[in-house]
Amino acid sequence: MNTSQPTAAVLLIGDEILSGRTKDKNLGFLADYLTALGIDLKEARVVSDAEEEIAAAVNALRSRYTYVFTTGGIGPTHDDITADAVAKAFGVAIDHDPKAVDILLAYFKEIGREPNEARLRMARIPVGATLIDNPVSKAPGFQMGNVFVMAGVPKIMNAMMEDVATRLTKGVPMQSRTIEFRGGEGDVAKPLGEIQKAYPAVVIGSYPFQAADGFATNLVLRSRDEAVLEQAFAAVKAMADELVTAGKARGWS
Amino acid sequence: MNTSQPTAAVLLIGDEILSGRTKDKNLGFLADYLTALGIDLKEARVVSDAEEEIAAAVNALRSRYTYVFTTGGIGPTHDDITADAVAKAFGVAIDHDPKAVDILLAYFKEIGREPNEARLRMARIPVGATLIDNPVSKAPGFQMGNVFVMAGVPKIMNAMMEDVATRLTKGVPMQSRTIEFRGGEGDVAKPLGEIQKAYPAVVIGSYPFQAADGFATNLVLRSRDEAVLEQAFAAVKAMADELVTAGKARGWS
Repeated sequence: MNTSQPTAAVLLIGDEILSGRTKDKNLGFLADYLTALGIDLKEARVVSDAEEEIAAAVNALRSRYTYVFTTGGIGPTHDDITADAVAKAFGVAIDHDPKAVDILLAYFKEIGREPNEARLRMARIPVGATLIDNPVSKAPGFQMGNVFVMAGVPKIMNAMMEDVATRLTKGVPMQSRTIEFRGGEGDVAKPLGEIQKAYPAVVIGSYPFQAADGFATNLVLRSRDEAVLEQAFAAVKAMADELVTAGKARGWS
Repeated sequence: MNTSQPTAAVLLIGDEILSGRTKDKNLGFLADYLTALGIDLKEARVVSDAEEEIAAAVNALRSRYTYVFTTGGIGPTHDDITADAVAKAFGVAIDHDPKAVDILLAYFKEIGREPNEARLRMARIPVGATLIDNPVSKAPGFQMGNVFVMAGVPKIMNAMMEDVATRLTKGVPMQSRTIEFRGGEGDVAKPLGEIQKAYPAVVIGSYPFQAADGFATNLVLRSRDEAVLEQAFAAVKAMADELVTAGKARGWS
């Protein structure tokens, strides 16, 4: 593993995920997005709408990873406290950002919406942060140091990542190969462990799943070194095929 | 908020979630399940298949919440290291549990599967833990102190929760009422914040979403006190209806 690869953490903010009311889709999107950029997502957390919880998580994660991506809690209502929590985490003040106010006022005028105090709360940005473009509903996200603060609504967050991506140092993307093994993990565990030892530059995982006709196992190989990946893939494929041919893949029933 | 309410954290373990290959469904299930039992899910984390990461997260969470529920990493392959990590977190040894070995041997005999060394790895349990029944594929989960260690395959984890649930102290279930407001958060933010202040025993959240014909907002009220919840619900409902009638819900376009 190249230690200069950029790393990342995702912080999902909101009682609605922890209560089960909303089923999160942002983690999966960000995981795919960052993997494609060669940025290793190492950890994710979900915390409630509580300022101290958000601030503590931001500080724990930003000191540990190259980037932190947060979603949720940047709207105009009383439970939207992410911007305040991030300001607190960085020990800076928070105020209406003139550029954010301009963006919102222009947008509200365009669509005939009243620029009330609550709506202008969305222009409150920690001092020193830069804005993140929101092409969907205009209210910006912001970047504070290595922390990117985005909306919780998937469509808006996904759009914000277009702007965010231009600011990120990309790594060498992880390549992956998958073998769908018609057997159980227990059939394949020993030889797979041996192949893992022989190819330390390849991360080999085995993921049982339920197919229509029983349990099966995906054998997934991931590496940044394509040549080594292909060698390890060939070794796993040959091993898995041999087990099936010899009738030793018994987990599949 | 009654401080004697049981609290919980969920710890999802696995590179496959962080790489984006697998889209997690366990958090949403556990959030719904615990909410129904009156147990407050306060935090969730996703960590990679790394022993120190898992152990550190287990220790951070078990000291803080009434219960911790982990999913993933208890199969027979080299990347299944959750049991070792939990033993490390508790500072206890890990060994083949005689009861778990019996369960596995009986099952393997029944289905004609070879009881190889790898498969029997699934009987390795931290010393002092009790087993969690797995009616789907037999290999047990385990409970160590206030930590419940379960499989990552949703069908198996869901079934394990049936046994786990019998061991949990239930709380007073949170009741919730939702109003689908045909307007934006900014239309409703100020009066909603005032109602929140008037009803501190009710947690009021606002969640914008994209409906077929534009953005709308779910106003969600949650409380363990049903009478107060109904009062607050009536107040929010009257406020929201008045805004719509007066043509002041402009966010909806």
